[in-house]
Amino acid sequence: MKAMMLRSFGGPESFELCDAPQPSPAAGEVLVRVHATSINPLDYQVRRGDYADFVPLPAITGHDVSGVVEAVGPGVTTFSPGDEVWYTPQIFAGPGSYAEYHVAAESIVGKKPPTLSHLEAACVPLVGGTAWEALVVRAGLRVGESVLIHGGAGGVGHVAIQLAKAIGARVYTTVREANFEFAQSLGADGVIDYRKEDYVDAILRETGGRGVDVVFDTIGGDALSRSPDALAQLGRVVTIVDIAQPQNVIQAWGKNASYHFVFTRQNRGKLDELSTLVERGQLRPHVGAVYPLADIPLAHTQLETPNNGVRGKIAIAVAPAAP
Amino acid sequence: MKAMMLRSFGGPESFELCDAPQPSPAAGEVLVRVHATSINPLDYQVRRGDYADFVPLPAITGHDVSGVVEAVGPGVTTFSPGDEVWYTPQIFAGPGSYAEYHVAAESIVGKKPPTLSHLEAACVPLVGGTAWEALVVRAGLRVGESVLIHGGAGGVGHVAIQLAKAIGARVYTTVREANFEFAQSLGADGVIDYRKEDYVDAILRETGGRGVDVVFDTIGGDALSRSPDALAQLGRVVTIVDIAQPQNVIQAWGKNASYHFVFTRQNRGKLDELSTLVERGQLRPHVGAVYPLADIPLAHTQLETPNNGVRGKIAIAVAPAAP
Repeated sequence: MKAMMLRSFGGPESFELCDAPQPSPAAGEVLVRVHATSINPLDYQVRRGDYADFVPLPAITGHDVSGVVEAVGPGVTTFSPGDEVWYTPQIFAGPGSYAEYHVAAESIVGKKPPTLSHLEAACVPLVGGTAWEALVVRAGLRVGESVLIHGGAGGVGHVAIQLAKAIGARVYTTVREANFEFAQSLGADGVIDYRKEDYVDAILRETGGRGVDVVFDTIGGDALSRSPDALAQLGRVVTIVDIAQPQNVIQAWGKNASYHFVFTRQNRGKLDELSTLVERGQLRPHVGAVYPLADIPLAHTQLETPNNGVRGKIAIAVAPAAP
Repeated sequence: MKAMMLRSFGGPESFELCDAPQPSPAAGEVLVRVHATSINPLDYQVRRGDYADFVPLPAITGHDVSGVVEAVGPGVTTFSPGDEVWYTPQIFAGPGSYAEYHVAAESIVGKKPPTLSHLEAACVPLVGGTAWEALVVRAGLRVGESVLIHGGAGGVGHVAIQLAKAIGARVYTTVREANFEFAQSLGADGVIDYRKEDYVDAILRETGGRGVDVVFDTIGGDALSRSPDALAQLGRVVTIVDIAQPQNVIQAWGKNASYHFVFTRQNRGKLDELSTLVERGQLRPHVGAVYPLADIPLAHTQLETPNNGVRGKIAIAVAPAAP
């Protein structure tokens, strides 16, 4: 099978398209014909070597699958050949999704929502699972609360806006001016152009000085230290961008704030919740660009470029003609 | 009435014992004859001027009251003259407890547990309310979980150990060697001499490498950055020591940790819960030293001195003969 192989840690040129042996499903596993995958910041962090200790080389990486079950191993009861599925491969445990075939444990695989194309479906598992983990599981965002979502036009951000709206929260988000209408189309109640107005000022103005209940940090920078200024008492910050630089969090005590640090966990169980939202019309991923498997290095370059113009996600069409 | 007045922000010499007008209870308020108060780190932080913006001088400060209701204002229904009460005065809103009389809103006052002396009872409201807020409200410590309590021989720490045991958690705590038996007498399952063994090493050894579910930081220092090393996945850190120095929290993401920053809130509602624990024999404050009202400056000096030898709390006998 064709696979995009990471030969060494480094830039996008570290990838090489090659022929790799097609895997076989063991007991409890399914073999999936990958129709599409997508690109996440985690992907280029892995490529750069940020997690070198957990990724033996050469490696097939990639963290999203939408495809069709080709065969099942002994004991598999939930899936049959021909089923459309979506999932995030087990993180740092075996090959990823940049390949024509992928094998996964039955327990981490979900049924793909039929109303999404494979390209759309491949854009959801990692970012959708992350947004669910952050807003629902960790921050406990509730109906009637307010949330500031940083980077609302991005991969996680554009799903988080829709999820927060589905929860019944009031949603503020930061975007560049070019993405104003995109953010509004996703349901954002208040859109802040962070290059024109300080977001803390904007939040305090919009909330009458109270602040929001939850800040979702998808961008890093100084969000950890500044977030308390935009928070209400007992507000929560949830962050998915790990930063080694020391952070001044002195304002967190005065707000009785809670910080939830989120690193990707397996999304088992969340896929069916996300599927329900898709079926109800409350969640739809936005495919901002599509590349073929062979052009994954180009896709990485685009995602890593600041102000890359991509809205939502970059999808990768793996099957010759992804339906 | 006699009152210890803070004349300026600075050292213990900034206090002056003086005669002040006895306050009167307005509607919804009670006048309390203060039998005892106690000293907290918050007290010397206020005295130093850490919260100068919130404390107009001259000021009667102090954050714990145990006493007897002397008179009630119009509309007070819960209390009558002669009732024994305990509470924390409203923080940064009016006079504190370093005086022979104090007026408080009925709604923040609780009935003192009859089995405690006034000196004992005065040691509970602020630290007990803080420990309750930290472990019960914010960290959500549950039966069967494990917790590391830093500074288990201190004011908050010695109450937190007993509270965590009452919750049904396994309790580890750090103390100096001289306080080993004291910590064990409070119910600690594992006592760590932090000067003899690194506490992260000790916790990992005691938990078979898993880490604890909750770390309660009562000491500051590098506890924020090091805590994730002692935490299990999805563990929680709860901290009451505000630190302006930037903190490296990069390990927090890998542990999917949550940090709860706690600044004193009014303890309304928690007093009755604490009273129940006292009545059941699950909580008993330890009075490590007693000073008269006139010697509050000495009491401050002692509490501020590192390794001061005090176990539990320093109480202040305000009434001529506190029973």
